[in-house]
Amino acid sequence: MANINIGVIGYGYWGPNIVRNFFSAADCTVKAVADGRPERLAAMNKIFPSIKGVKTGDEIINDTEIDAVVVATPVFTHFALAKKALENGKHVLIEKPMTSTVAEAEELIELATKKGLTLMADHTFLYTGAVRKMKELIDTDIIGTPRYFDSARINLGLFQPDINVLWDLAPHDISILTYLITETPLSINATGISHTHNNIENIAYMTVNYNSDFIAHFNCSWTSPVKVRQTLIGGDKKMIVYNDLEPSEKIRVYDTSYNHTTVLDRNTIMVDYRTGDVYIPKIQLSEALSGVANDFIQSIINKTKPLACAELGMQVVKILEASQESIKNKGKEVKIK
Amino acid sequence: MANINIGVIGYGYWGPNIVRNFFSAADCTVKAVADGRPERLAAMNKIFPSIKGVKTGDEIINDTEIDAVVVATPVFTHFALAKKALENGKHVLIEKPMTSTVAEAEELIELATKKGLTLMADHTFLYTGAVRKMKELIDTDIIGTPRYFDSARINLGLFQPDINVLWDLAPHDISILTYLITETPLSINATGISHTHNNIENIAYMTVNYNSDFIAHFNCSWTSPVKVRQTLIGGDKKMIVYNDLEPSEKIRVYDTSYNHTTVLDRNTIMVDYRTGDVYIPKIQLSEALSGVANDFIQSIINKTKPLACAELGMQVVKILEASQESIKNKGKEVKIK
Amino acid sequence: MANINIGVIGYGYWGPNIVRNFFSAADCTVKAVADGRPERLAAMNKIFPSIKGVKTGDEIINDTEIDAVVVATPVFTHFALAKKALENGKHVLIEKPMTSTVAEAEELIELATKKGLTLMADHTFLYTGAVRKMKELIDTDIIGTPRYFDSARINLGLFQPDINVLWDLAPHDISILTYLITETPLSINATGISHTHNNIENIAYMTVNYNSDFIAHFNCSWTSPVKVRQTLIGGDKKMIVYNDLEPSEKIRVYDTSYNHTTVLDRNTIMVDYRTGDVYIPKIQLSEALSGVANDFIQSIINKTKPLACAELGMQVVKILEASQESIKNKGKEVKIK
Amino acid sequence: MANINIGVIGYGYWGPNIVRNFFSAADCTVKAVADGRPERLAAMNKIFPSIKGVKTGDEIINDTEIDAVVVATPVFTHFALAKKALENGKHVLIEKPMTSTVAEAEELIELATKKGLTLMADHTFLYTGAVRKMKELIDTDIIGTPRYFDSARINLGLFQPDINVLWDLAPHDISILTYLITETPLSINATGISHTHNNIENIAYMTVNYNSDFIAHFNCSWTSPVKVRQTLIGGDKKMIVYNDLEPSEKIRVYDTSYNHTTVLDRNTIMVDYRTGDVYIPKIQLSEALSGVANDFIQSIINKTKPLACAELGMQVVKILEASQESIKNKGKEVKIK
Repeated sequence: MANINIGVIGYGYWGPNIVRNFFSAADCTVKAVADGRPERLAAMNKIFPSIKGVKTGDEIINDTEIDAVVVATPVFTHFALAKKALENGKHVLIEKPMTSTVAEAEELIELATKKGLTLMADHTFLYTGAVRKMKELIDTDIIGTPRYFDSARINLGLFQPDINVLWDLAPHDISILTYLITETPLSINATGISHTHNNIENIAYMTVNYNSDFIAHFNCSWTSPVKVRQTLIGGDKKMIVYNDLEPSEKIRVYDTSYNHTTVLDRNTIMVDYRTGDVYIPKIQLSEALSGVANDFIQSIINKTKPLACAELGMQVVKILEASQESIKNKGKEVKIK
Repeated sequence: MANINIGVIGYGYWGPNIVRNFFSAADCTVKAVADGRPERLAAMNKIFPSIKGVKTGDEIINDTEIDAVVVATPVFTHFALAKKALENGKHVLIEKPMTSTVAEAEELIELATKKGLTLMADHTFLYTGAVRKMKELIDTDIIGTPRYFDSARINLGLFQPDINVLWDLAPHDISILTYLITETPLSINATGISHTHNNIENIAYMTVNYNSDFIAHFNCSWTSPVKVRQTLIGGDKKMIVYNDLEPSEKIRVYDTSYNHTTVLDRNTIMVDYRTGDVYIPKIQLSEALSGVANDFIQSIINKTKPLACAELGMQVVKILEASQESIKNKGKEVKIK
Repeated sequence: MANINIGVIGYGYWGPNIVRNFFSAADCTVKAVADGRPERLAAMNKIFPSIKGVKTGDEIINDTEIDAVVVATPVFTHFALAKKALENGKHVLIEKPMTSTVAEAEELIELATKKGLTLMADHTFLYTGAVRKMKELIDTDIIGTPRYFDSARINLGLFQPDINVLWDLAPHDISILTYLITETPLSINATGISHTHNNIENIAYMTVNYNSDFIAHFNCSWTSPVKVRQTLIGGDKKMIVYNDLEPSEKIRVYDTSYNHTTVLDRNTIMVDYRTGDVYIPKIQLSEALSGVANDFIQSIINKTKPLACAELGMQVVKILEASQESIKNKGKEVKIK
Repeated sequence: MANINIGVIGYGYWGPNIVRNFFSAADCTVKAVADGRPERLAAMNKIFPSIKGVKTGDEIINDTEIDAVVVATPVFTHFALAKKALENGKHVLIEKPMTSTVAEAEELIELATKKGLTLMADHTFLYTGAVRKMKELIDTDIIGTPRYFDSARINLGLFQPDINVLWDLAPHDISILTYLITETPLSINATGISHTHNNIENIAYMTVNYNSDFIAHFNCSWTSPVKVRQTLIGGDKKMIVYNDLEPSEKIRVYDTSYNHTTVLDRNTIMVDYRTGDVYIPKIQLSEALSGVANDFIQSIINKTKPLACAELGMQVVKILEASQESIKNKGKEVKIK
């Protein structure tokens, strides 16, 4: 029976969750955790005495016993660590967002492909019952042709010192968009404001444009007095409201739609509405990160592509990179590479 | 005692509310209502047998007994009707949005000034207890320096045949923004989509930029399965959540703020948070349109400027006009005239 | 074509709604309204100039042109007015609660039967889309065998000078219970408190016991800072939450149930739970009082029994009378007559 | 520096929380945990390898190294275990409800007093920020004289095999009532139903009567499709709504009140209403059970009385015992001993 030995680099905010979930996952063993802060390693060892604590990522990357590496460090360090790990023959799971640039993501994907290694991005939300249910509702044509995706993710949050609010909060929603909507996005408009006057926007808005008449919009803020995590997804048959703050009733399906007809002789549009029942499907509430850990391990063992594959991770970075360019250029449209 | 004779042009969706409120207002008499549809006049006369129904706006405008005219017709007709009424020496109240272009608004304001007549835009929301309370909270420095204004006004609504969703829904929120925030806005970015493929957007997003680091954003849709009418206003001392759908608790004041300090030697930003009590002030729940009617009448009598003055109405049109140009130009920044 | 001439006695809080709905109903004409207060008659005539205002109920009851009488006066006057009207050959609709005692209700029913006249109680809630939908959900066995009915109707309300909070607020919920649950209730326990120290309880609680293991409970208060109008109805297959304050989503059907098995050798009970989807059926939102008016008129014309028949009205009074006796006797069980 | 050695008897649903909180508390060491189920001890040791697992409570009670015992077993075993522990000179903390009968509680209190030992009941809710804030609002006369306490605690819950829903769920709310309201309750009325037909009610209602015109009511159910944990507390100046399911805004203070005047000549009651602002105080959100652990330890060390003292625990049992007698006697009033 296969057993994958895991090393985790970074034991900050998200690290303990990663370690805990890989600890409980089948077919793997967490061997070592790296963090430069002794107090973080001590905290780790109090809970997991069997895991070795090391000071640097290199000690993980160079450890010949380790098969796979989880990179859970600040974004700007992802590329160098992941590259070195892949070069050393390790499978790699990278925290979201995968890299700071599309070029970095492309290079990692190329390297992983060449080496035959699994490269995956930790887009945890794809493993939630709510997102799985929405995928099912879209793929089985329950909501019809998707028309829009409108997401708000705002709260009074920790200002990040190195990345703006879109890079911090939007990856969740962009990964959901990318997973649910198969059409390739065309371009981005983004606006925002930096109240800290350091070009790191704490409020930002982004529109994603498509060749079709689908549209997506994102509203992100670190400075809202209330926490909102809500996405509307409109189809031409039904519409979904996804409220991630609801403890169990996260998905509501509205039997609501509209149709338009062009009345030629009067050159006007007639729009018909329909509103009906609302349906709240029961969704699985198990921990999503456990799904990430299992998918990573099984993808390595079975040489399959994980759900949150590196290509999806790169698509998220493409949108983020374009958003940054649009904000710098005062909101003008930026084509996605 | 003064008595202003009123004529109302247009008895569509909003007309009955206008007639009812002027009917109950002091110091005025509703003399005539014009509508080309006989069944609308019949409906009016069933409730108000004392009011004369006429077929055309001209019959109102040329009626020498009438002192003041309310224009409650589709937007594209506002300018011609209001202009003729002012030329005939009538005071004029125009439904929101005031005109289709800034040039039209300017011409009407000039004409009213020359003639010494009252010109007013029906921005009803300025007369609600909720908006009055927010004005008070801002003017008395309770929330500190305003930092952002973030509004969503979405529902499954009637598609308009001639104006897009921003022209239809955003005037409410733009008028509130203009009333609450004294700084002159600088520029607009707007994006959107027309699912009816007739260049009339049914979903649209707009950012309003300022010289300071204040920012405003608007999210409007006719195609949401849920109705939302919510605005967040963040100050550097406190923050407001204004939910117009709450029956009485429309305004929540959060004792929430954040401060940042630049730590020079480390070139980083330190941000401190504070969260505290929430306060829900009691607000007056009387009908706002009655405030509009009274302000119009008393402004005529006392030769004073109404709250929803024509200049404010024009400011709303300036933002809308710029939004339209931005949408046409794929979201690029458009300076406000 | 039939036309029923209507007289309304009492133009207080509810009177205008009654007059407006009968005014719009088919096959009837509102001829006269009686109220001892001239200002109420003036208010009525301002809206309905065609209706005659009279000072006393007798003028209605003795009017030979009038076929049917609506009694919308304080409860203690219902019996005498309704009796006289029936004796004069009028059909009678009485505001809820129908009478002050069961004996009075019995006498009215006997009289109406003898005279072949329609006698009906204005239990408006039976004519709402929400209650109709719940009736359908129960009658089609969607929720299975009903197990409990738990209602709260509390708010900061007008203290009534003559009847306690159960007589004031509970008739709505008792009529719904009586309509939905066909089993005859057995007994009542009720408790409460009179903060006005005049034996008129402003807070009261009532349990309705049955021969089966069904149970109903009512929580009524005039002194709650928040308004609640919620009823839970549990079946052994599904459960309903009915929230009358929701603008449209009044009914939620939970696919939730539990089953128990007695494990004999261990003498213990095993209970299995099931939770599943939630379903919010679209319900008709038309005005319920219009349904009352139409049912009254058509029952007269077609000599059929209305939904809110006098027998149902009497059943409500039976429960209220027993509750009063139980409160007086410190909550002890009182059998329903 | 003092160090209290702790033994915990019972490692079921609540046990892990108790062990974790005492593990983190100052001035104490968790020495041993007793549970008859080997798999429970194994689960405990996986997390707390330093704690000794033993099979029986006696091994804890007879351990001379142990100073204090936490009894976290089914209710019917509380008395025997606690008695033996006190006799062996241990301080004792007992899970709620403290005992099965008032007589048992009295005997334990007497024994603890004689031995000079700390005896405490684990009424965790008294240590929440929300209950502390309500205590402050009442003790500082913010809400005025309390008039009523109305609590609902319902959900789809685990049916208990040995105690009814009042014994299971109401102790939380009864302990809050007892803590907040200093007046001694007079009597109980309780009703309920056992859908499992084993005299263990799964739905029950209880009224607590007082000599004054204060009233308390409790609504408990294991068979609700929705989870509700809400208490209204009305004072003659203000009113509180306490919703324990709100993540942070648990307490709302309504500036709402009513006053009545008896109008002698008309023998009627005039009631004035006042509604005003709502205020949501920030409350401390730290884990309540940690407060329990600290209070127990410090009460032992400082020979002081804990907040959740045995007398308060007995008062809760008095109300529960009376409720049981009332249910057996079909809801009749039962005096509290």
